[in-house]
Amino acid sequence: MSLPTHGANPHYLYEALGIEMPLYVIDFSANINPLGPPASLAENWSSFYSHIIKYPDPHAAQLTKRLAEKEGVHENSILVGNGGAEIITLVGRMLTGKRVLIIQPAFAEYAEACHAAGCEVSFYQLQAPKWEIELEKLRPLLQQNDAVFLCTPNNPTGISFPQEVVHELVRECKKENCILVIDEAFYDFTDDAFTYASLVTTNHHVVILRSLTKIFAIPGLRLGYLLADEALVQQLKTYKPHWSVNAIALAAGQLCIEEDAYIEQTRAYIREQKQRLFIFFAENGFEVSNSSINFYLLKDQGAEDASALLTYLLKKGIIPRHTYNFPGLDGRWLRFAVKSEADNTVLMEALQQWRDQHSTL
Amino acid sequence: MSLPTHGANPHYLYEALGIEMPLYVIDFSANINPLGPPASLAENWSSFYSHIIKYPDPHAAQLTKRLAEKEGVHENSILVGNGGAEIITLVGRMLTGKRVLIIQPAFAEYAEACHAAGCEVSFYQLQAPKWEIELEKLRPLLQQNDAVFLCTPNNPTGISFPQEVVHELVRECKKENCILVIDEAFYDFTDDAFTYASLVTTNHHVVILRSLTKIFAIPGLRLGYLLADEALVQQLKTYKPHWSVNAIALAAGQLCIEEDAYIEQTRAYIREQKQRLFIFFAENGFEVSNSSINFYLLKDQGAEDASALLTYLLKKGIIPRHTYNFPGLDGRWLRFAVKSEADNTVLMEALQQWRDQHSTL
Repeated sequence: MSLPTHGANPHYLYEALGIEMPLYVIDFSANINPLGPPASLAENWSSFYSHIIKYPDPHAAQLTKRLAEKEGVHENSILVGNGGAEIITLVGRMLTGKRVLIIQPAFAEYAEACHAAGCEVSFYQLQAPKWEIELEKLRPLLQQNDAVFLCTPNNPTGISFPQEVVHELVRECKKENCILVIDEAFYDFTDDAFTYASLVTTNHHVVILRSLTKIFAIPGLRLGYLLADEALVQQLKTYKPHWSVNAIALAAGQLCIEEDAYIEQTRAYIREQKQRLFIFFAENGFEVSNSSINFYLLKDQGAEDASALLTYLLKKGIIPRHTYNFPGLDGRWLRFAVKSEADNTVLMEALQQWRDQHSTL
Repeated sequence: MSLPTHGANPHYLYEALGIEMPLYVIDFSANINPLGPPASLAENWSSFYSHIIKYPDPHAAQLTKRLAEKEGVHENSILVGNGGAEIITLVGRMLTGKRVLIIQPAFAEYAEACHAAGCEVSFYQLQAPKWEIELEKLRPLLQQNDAVFLCTPNNPTGISFPQEVVHELVRECKKENCILVIDEAFYDFTDDAFTYASLVTTNHHVVILRSLTKIFAIPGLRLGYLLADEALVQQLKTYKPHWSVNAIALAAGQLCIEEDAYIEQTRAYIREQKQRLFIFFAENGFEVSNSSINFYLLKDQGAEDASALLTYLLKKGIIPRHTYNFPGLDGRWLRFAVKSEADNTVLMEALQQWRDQHSTL
């Protein structure tokens, strides 16, 4: 079975599984803000048209300046990119031929980018259902690697690793001369919006990845950025195509990053929805990951494999993210985004029906 | 003097030269369709908004299918990218560490992409004012290289190389096991729209680059593609970030590629404007390149260096493309896009004033 290696674009999943795609579907496989984009984007959309006839600023100067102010770092420490995926590709390319450790399960793009760059890729595998980093096991692996990828809050589990563990990892990586790439694509969704960004000014080995497409629900536009040591940013720029970030993404990004209240509103909404969902799951025999953000892993306590549940939901037009290509999950779990109240209700109703047909043992 | 290495984004040029940028400027440095985007884009712009909240199709399946039909090649021979610049970066990466020959003068991005990939880059230099390829001089260089970049119609001269010369180059490259990259970014602007695209089905060593941003005046959106052997396309895909082409570019591209009448109209307009311009230039002592497309090189017959003319025009708000970073031109020429009738008139008036102040010897 050759399934898509990413969420979103669900027709590819239906095709791969040979299931007919219903006319009406709800895509829980894309982890974007359930409130949609901030209203300012729709309000300004018509004015964005004028941007299509001009080359975008290849240096994204205005957006970079504002991001630098917000993050408290120098402008030269920021690189705006064509979505998180481009940023990861650039980092992978910088690591060409090196030994790279990925703390798994994690976003599939790290391994793909590093494999494409001829890296020697190995995994440090976290164990369900807590997915905790055990430093004494991880530590010896750092000596054998040139770079480590850590996704926190983690995709696909949604778990934020404890700060003391990450800080210890930062210190250990420094000692072992190991680059530490911390992907914070979903940090805006956490209640305290805790970030490791300030580390980059004093730790030349720390790279922070950020995405604007999830929190502002603009995956169609592509926008992300990276925070790192100035020399490292300079090196990454040489790999980047000129004008890689389109003008609409730049214009939208400049509006979005001023939307602090919208982020607060999003957090409150997700907190509320997750509470409702997690009570339902606990009461109905579904195990979930201890997510701090806008998606979670789920499994039927009574089932060893999630493939039957996946098929059942897809036929109903409910699209989870399969986990076959997440090492350590291997299809046993399904990932769901926290969506609108109505969509989450549809999911619970479908799972209720599933439970009625399948006892928990 | 460190000048921008590309046209467009003119404020960077003013900054580098320390000239105050006038409030009203006409940018002749970006080679885009003077008629602007096809009307269908403005008409459909509001409907494009809905695309921002979904991930774009990472395989650009619909656009790829239609391009394959139009070009008469298999879908697997086409790779849609985030503008010509991304496509060039991917090709550069494929050539990592190889020996690359660039037929100069040419678009600066080839050398930049190849240098970033650690290629050994050398130039075959064409000579002003005809910029002809002399095969007997070029032939021995093919043995010493793994790939050759040829831009035809050429950027920055606007000259289309004779077909028999290019076909001979295709044969010679095959014999020497040399990849031939033919950049056709501006082929739509030529009167006959002649293309080498059909070569890719039988010549595994030929790669064709295309751009949709110039002919459809959508540089802000970023859209280009490549035609090549299926195995080569497959390899390039591994270097490409997932979702590198944004959803607005895909939606716009699907409308644009059906705009054949618009392309015809564009050609007629440019032909007419160029005729008017070239008569003026001949009568007033300005030398120009024998351009077949929508831009041309220009120099004052009475001047060895174009820097005084460049400064004179920039101060008036007329923005040419400097040629300091085009090997073989070295700032002696200026490049101008063919723009609207009104804009071209402004240019001629300014050059008339310049002529009144500077005799032709």
